[in-house]
Amino acid sequence: MANLIRQTTELALHIVRPYVTPDSTVIDATCGNGHDTLALAQMNPAKLYAFDIQEDAIRTTTALLEANGYSKSIAERRIILRCAAHEEMRKYVSSPVNAVLFNLGYLPGGDKEITTKAASTLIAVQAAMELLETDGVICITMYSGHDAGKEEKAALLNFAETLDAKLWHTAYISMPNQKHNPPEILFITRKA
Amino acid sequence: MANLIRQTTELALHIVRPYVTPDSTVIDATCGNGHDTLALAQMNPAKLYAFDIQEDAIRTTTALLEANGYSKSIAERRIILRCAAHEEMRKYVSSPVNAVLFNLGYLPGGDKEITTKAASTLIAVQAAMELLETDGVICITMYSGHDAGKEEKAALLNFAETLDAKLWHTAYISMPNQKHNPPEILFITRKA
Repeated sequence: MANLIRQTTELALHIVRPYVTPDSTVIDATCGNGHDTLALAQMNPAKLYAFDIQEDAIRTTTALLEANGYSKSIAERRIILRCAAHEEMRKYVSSPVNAVLFNLGYLPGGDKEITTKAASTLIAVQAAMELLETDGVICITMYSGHDAGKEEKAALLNFAETLDAKLWHTAYISMPNQKHNPPEILFITRKA
Repeated sequence: MANLIRQTTELALHIVRPYVTPDSTVIDATCGNGHDTLALAQMNPAKLYAFDIQEDAIRTTTALLEANGYSKSIAERRIILRCAAHEEMRKYVSSPVNAVLFNLGYLPGGDKEITTKAASTLIAVQAAMELLETDGVICITMYSGHDAGKEEKAALLNFAETLDAKLWHTAYISMPNQKHNPPEILFITRKA
């Protein structure tokens, strides 16, 4: 059997899944190698946006979606892929969204110098919050094994702590007995 | 739509559900008003044990199960309810188990002086760990709004931090922007 608790990416998707209905608009803010984009597509939302700042990531993700039968969805623009920084998502998405995934850090197998950074990630998360419907969710997988990731995680947790508890609820999944900076997850959901 | 992130009890059950198969043995270590026991019964495990130290809780849980069509499961001992302290579960369960739920604190609507306590809860969690199969999960919902609960949570988190990362994986769900001691969840899963 799969052990969900140990597979951070799968745990994140498992918690996001009940938020996605056939009417949903969802966003993969950092499509990377396309794993999360494909998982979101398989949840059958009405509209799926995928962003990445690297052309390579958009190409890989498009190929993965096509290989899994989503060419028609792309052609009919139910799935929209765009090479853009995640903090620019509000230029491309106007409708209220139900779920936004962030999988931070660098592109697996790509240039490790190109990584998400605290300042722009905070802007992107705030953009996602503005787009979010009531009872919508933002799911952020954070990697603190590199310096920029450590700083980014600290900035996100500080930000989460300051959010008005009347309007937002946050949940943070940490791994108390894992010593080597395991990936962790932060959820932000809109209460009103 | 339900907002899973905000409903701690439902979030705990949602994460436990994939661990329970028709072959599973599962335990509700603190059946209380029976909410979690019923939810576990609905996951259709081979065997479900439910413990509580208060006769009232066993009566309420039995009535809830019967009202939901589980009289036959109780008669055929696929569901076994027992008035016993959770730290004594090893007296009654011998087979390896796939999932153990703890919902700590006092019985809702009952005597608030009768609450789980750090020392006995730690013994109970260690008993559950000894019964746990590889890839099985222990899910502990913790309430730190009363003094005994605060102490119990601190003891559990300290304990979780010391667990050998080769044998155990732990995950802790906290709520960064909730100021009034919200319920939180600790998961312990066996790696080997």
